[in-house]
Amino acid sequence: MGIAGLGTVGASVVRLLGDKTDHLSKRSGRDVAVTAVCARDRGRDRGVSLDGLSWHDDPVALAESDGIDLFVELMGGEGDPAAAAVSTALRRGRPVVTANKALLAARGTELARLAEENGTTIGFEAAVAGGIPIVKTMREAMAGNRVERVYGILNGTCNYILTRMEEEGLSFADCLAEAQRLGYAEADPTFDIEGHDSAHKLALLSSLAFGVTTDFDSIHLEGIASITTEDLKAAAELGYRIKLLGVARRTDTGIEQRVTPTMMPRNLALANVDGVLNAVAVDGDEVGEITMVGPGAGGSATASAVVADIVDIARGRCLPVFGIPAAELEPYRRARMRKHAGGYYIRLSVYDRPGAFAAIAQRMAEEQISLESIVQKEAKGAKGAQSARRVVLITHDTMEAQIRKALQAIEDDGQIAERPHVIRIEKP
Amino acid sequence: MGIAGLGTVGASVVRLLGDKTDHLSKRSGRDVAVTAVCARDRGRDRGVSLDGLSWHDDPVALAESDGIDLFVELMGGEGDPAAAAVSTALRRGRPVVTANKALLAARGTELARLAEENGTTIGFEAAVAGGIPIVKTMREAMAGNRVERVYGILNGTCNYILTRMEEEGLSFADCLAEAQRLGYAEADPTFDIEGHDSAHKLALLSSLAFGVTTDFDSIHLEGIASITTEDLKAAAELGYRIKLLGVARRTDTGIEQRVTPTMMPRNLALANVDGVLNAVAVDGDEVGEITMVGPGAGGSATASAVVADIVDIARGRCLPVFGIPAAELEPYRRARMRKHAGGYYIRLSVYDRPGAFAAIAQRMAEEQISLESIVQKEAKGAKGAQSARRVVLITHDTMEAQIRKALQAIEDDGQIAERPHVIRIEKP
Repeated sequence: MGIAGLGTVGASVVRLLGDKTDHLSKRSGRDVAVTAVCARDRGRDRGVSLDGLSWHDDPVALAESDGIDLFVELMGGEGDPAAAAVSTALRRGRPVVTANKALLAARGTELARLAEENGTTIGFEAAVAGGIPIVKTMREAMAGNRVERVYGILNGTCNYILTRMEEEGLSFADCLAEAQRLGYAEADPTFDIEGHDSAHKLALLSSLAFGVTTDFDSIHLEGIASITTEDLKAAAELGYRIKLLGVARRTDTGIEQRVTPTMMPRNLALANVDGVLNAVAVDGDEVGEITMVGPGAGGSATASAVVADIVDIARGRCLPVFGIPAAELEPYRRARMRKHAGGYYIRLSVYDRPGAFAAIAQRMAEEQISLESIVQKEAKGAKGAQSARRVVLITHDTMEAQIRKALQAIEDDGQIAERPHVIRIEKP
Repeated sequence: MGIAGLGTVGASVVRLLGDKTDHLSKRSGRDVAVTAVCARDRGRDRGVSLDGLSWHDDPVALAESDGIDLFVELMGGEGDPAAAAVSTALRRGRPVVTANKALLAARGTELARLAEENGTTIGFEAAVAGGIPIVKTMREAMAGNRVERVYGILNGTCNYILTRMEEEGLSFADCLAEAQRLGYAEADPTFDIEGHDSAHKLALLSSLAFGVTTDFDSIHLEGIASITTEDLKAAAELGYRIKLLGVARRTDTGIEQRVTPTMMPRNLALANVDGVLNAVAVDGDEVGEITMVGPGAGGSATASAVVADIVDIARGRCLPVFGIPAAELEPYRRARMRKHAGGYYIRLSVYDRPGAFAAIAQRMAEEQISLESIVQKEAKGAKGAQSARRVVLITHDTMEAQIRKALQAIEDDGQIAERPHVIRIEKP
């Protein structure tokens, strides 16, 4: 096989395959070996021996070279050269194993079709939730199920930050800085904290879950930068926790896909997943809910997923990329967020004056929104016409359009000092 | 295919395959259909139509009939007719899918060999933890890992009883009666509450994890009948929970396999799995720990696992039963419990008289056992020479042989009113 990309994951895969030849040949029914590699910097020390491997400077050249029967793409990036190299390998009928979520989120349907036209397949276990075998679980183990919902904590950086904010009462900015110091967050963390990374993974989970074409652009995105320690504390008092959750759900109007900070009751398994771990839960009509928890990143954990795909392919496994033939994938039909039905957490900063709360309650009532609980905090700072106090509302299930209308009316009434902060609630 | 056994699971499989023909043919790449069945009572209404299926009274006759290309065994029982029927199908080169943990725990190695000699395989996802795809995860998704430990909550009945005891403060006997009323426990619950059912599953997990022959008889068994609400409360106060856990672990002296009530710190994912759910965690050297939670029983959930195996086989998948060729399975080498190293919870009933506790502490010190915490409860009932008070000790990691010696000495000293109650502690 040929491996393109020798970063942390690529080097771990080379190391794992080299360390465990005997172990892997028993499980593959044949020898499994790297014969060629490709990376940008030939001279760099990666902590693994590349002796005897043929070196390529161009991944496309590696993908079409005669010496390989499997192409492992670990370069990343949704454009070329990854896209060109993967397409090249598939066109030659060579199976591809990749950890590249960006590429598949953007072009999953097209590449699945290309693989099948050429009688081959793409393994992408490592692209979603690192070491957790959620792709195999959905594609194979849940084959008898109609999936209603898949949801997960898909980004360890965000989960680490939220966990630390909760544990230590530190601000988002402080926890982000800590995560950067510890190497859990990038120097430019935008991609993680705004939810793009989670959304790439969610797009793939949606296709697996519902048999639809991948549609990354339709995912509703909200990052975690707006979450305050006050939100986390209020959630805890009410028996909830807040996580950055990717959720894809079958609804009457289409598939809803969103990556947003989400409140979950503490009795949900996912609510208790802390730190850099990832977790995914899938609801199937036969099996009920299956939850998987494990490391979502890291060289060895991701290499474990890459190697599982390699062993499957060595065994001759050639499944349709998303579980059903690409031609059978239905066009993704988006459910609009304003049709989202569920409970809401609403944090308001209400001016401390007579009638303010009554006016708010009136606006909620006008939209038929009923409240499960109301927590009013003591006003901080100076009293007076411009002082405001925190009010936290939890609603019963309602339609998002109603919530938006009510909050707009409340803003227009001039009873609140800041824009309302809204967090959706996900229930079992 | 032919299905032998039309109880809850068998009927659910027939129903699922009938309801989802189109869904399954997309995932299997071919049509998947039941053609023949076998059960004891032909006249019974099972809520599914058996029209057009050929009926057999004898499962062995079904297994060798010419009309089937796959034999699904859902009768259960470690002896005949299940054993004879499975062997017959394998000898004819027909793949077998089974939920029969008792049969595989007793004869797994032998049947794996028979399958391979005849160029076929056995799917047994449904035999371990019901709907949780732990067999596929260990056999395929973790192929690149050397497994160090696998442990799980493998019996929903026991987990339900322990959860209810904790929640309601009710006795073991009351919760068992409740579980029986709700249909979660059998009229004769021995098999579940003494740990045999968990042990069957653990034997199979051990073979998958460590590449060793199945050895049910070597499993150290302790049931949950000795657990009191007092133990559960003391555990909670110390930051632990008690679950009936099956644990298999690689040690220097062999593989330790045990099914025992076990204390776990609350931050372990498994410690938070309540009610009838099952859960399994696996520690791999590459991936770290993967935890899976889901329904461990029930017709539809188990049928989901059976159907996943059927789809795999329809796709032409033919893996060695335990992940590596049966001839490569190493003979199981048992690690003795007295060599077990870990922490211990010890509940003592100490006579309420001067020097009693000092004598106990002295016996512990003689065996180099150091204590992490000591909780002494107020004595209940009348004071006097024969009144006793509860003392709960938590030890640091120590060798079980030392614990046994110290407790024997404490008993011999006559300082305690009852036999000590010991619960092992499992850590991350």
